[in-house]
Amino acid sequence: MNIDVLTLFPEMFEGVFGSSILGKAREKGIVSFRTINFRDYANNKHNTVDDYPYGGGGGMVLKPEPIFAAVEERMAGLQSQPRVILMCPQGETFTQRKAEELAAEEHLIFICGHYEGYDERIRRYLVTDELSIGDYVLTGGEIPAMAVIDCVTRLLPGVLGNESSAVTDSFSTGLLEYPHYTRPAKFRDWEVPEVLLSGHHGNIDKWRRQQSLHRTFLRRPELLDNIPLTKEEKGWIKEWEASRE
Amino acid sequence: MNIDVLTLFPEMFEGVFGSSILGKAREKGIVSFRTINFRDYANNKHNTVDDYPYGGGGGMVLKPEPIFAAVEERMAGLQSQPRVILMCPQGETFTQRKAEELAAEEHLIFICGHYEGYDERIRRYLVTDELSIGDYVLTGGEIPAMAVIDCVTRLLPGVLGNESSAVTDSFSTGLLEYPHYTRPAKFRDWEVPEVLLSGHHGNIDKWRRQQSLHRTFLRRPELLDNIPLTKEEKGWIKEWEASRE
Repeated sequence: MNIDVLTLFPEMFEGVFGSSILGKAREKGIVSFRTINFRDYANNKHNTVDDYPYGGGGGMVLKPEPIFAAVEERMAGLQSQPRVILMCPQGETFTQRKAEELAAEEHLIFICGHYEGYDERIRRYLVTDELSIGDYVLTGGEIPAMAVIDCVTRLLPGVLGNESSAVTDSFSTGLLEYPHYTRPAKFRDWEVPEVLLSGHHGNIDKWRRQQSLHRTFLRRPELLDNIPLTKEEKGWIKEWEASRE
Repeated sequence: MNIDVLTLFPEMFEGVFGSSILGKAREKGIVSFRTINFRDYANNKHNTVDDYPYGGGGGMVLKPEPIFAAVEERMAGLQSQPRVILMCPQGETFTQRKAEELAAEEHLIFICGHYEGYDERIRRYLVTDELSIGDYVLTGGEIPAMAVIDCVTRLLPGVLGNESSAVTDSFSTGLLEYPHYTRPAKFRDWEVPEVLLSGHHGNIDKWRRQQSLHRTFLRRPELLDNIPLTKEEKGWIKEWEASRE
């Protein structure tokens, strides 16, 4: 997969693209990352990429020409049409399902604005997707693009070893994870729950399932609506509901 | 404000802490960033920070000792108790309101795990907050911590100039932003809406409000529930609802 990022701050990505899973995926040749500073496409003597908004008001607006030029140069000669993704607060909220959809593509181009708004013509005539990572105000699209790129790259075949896949799998239950414990068995005054030291796998599995359900019940009860539950598990939840009242 | 980040990948933060708003906030002395590699606190000959989970199963678990040691060394001698924030998928979903709460603190310590789970004793006896930035699977807490840190730092007094504040303000309406346009007035075949060139501020304001409501109606209708609307605006929404049926 090819991933391009249009940004005025390419240096923000260096450490992220070079480290950990993303760095390894790149080394293995599964993905290539390129940052493109669209100021290089400004085509005016002051290298201006933004301008005042028509109609007045505060803030600056990213001009259409440099961003169109950068994306179109990148697209020239490609066999297939890439997804062109605008990171913006007005976008669709990013989800794991969206990550799976993007992971099936050959080429992704991310556009990261910074402080400014985007000229609407970029949104209407150039991009295929608008994405937001959540309802909070960030300075630019760079950190959100990193989140999407990390999430998508993890899904590409060959990127994760078995060890890490296992962790991902625990998400696929649709519940929050049960508590994990490792050595030492006693740290300060705090001991690992006895059942985990028992070696009794049936009890361990039951304890973990119960803990996972209980944590989900307490923190994200809406997730329980989509989970098939046994009669016993429904009983636990009734008890928790009762003890809360 | 002091912000410390415990991570096994400190190099991921270099470009982000040095650029843009975060870089400027640091230069102005409003915030200081420090990354702490908790592998330095491993205190065993192989510098191991994780171990197998009690009770079996895949994946590794971050050991309690190095993380407790790193946090406690940092806390020693502080006048006030810092917030200790665990980035994890089981955490509370981060919001702008949470950012405002954290922006009132003097000291934040972020703990970023990577692939592995956390020993439950870290969660129970060391951290004050558990945060998630959204429902998607990421490799580690580093990129989520960057998002939270960017969002919180922007809120500190003196960090944003007037220009950027204006952009933020448009969020405070609780609606998605209206379309922005800048020069050229005609780019390819695509022209800026006439009203924005009219110089008639009453009409411009009305057009922007209508566009903002319409975009919110189409993309995030649930946000409209919290917005006080005039009779005329309610009329627009009724028309949009009717034309959709």
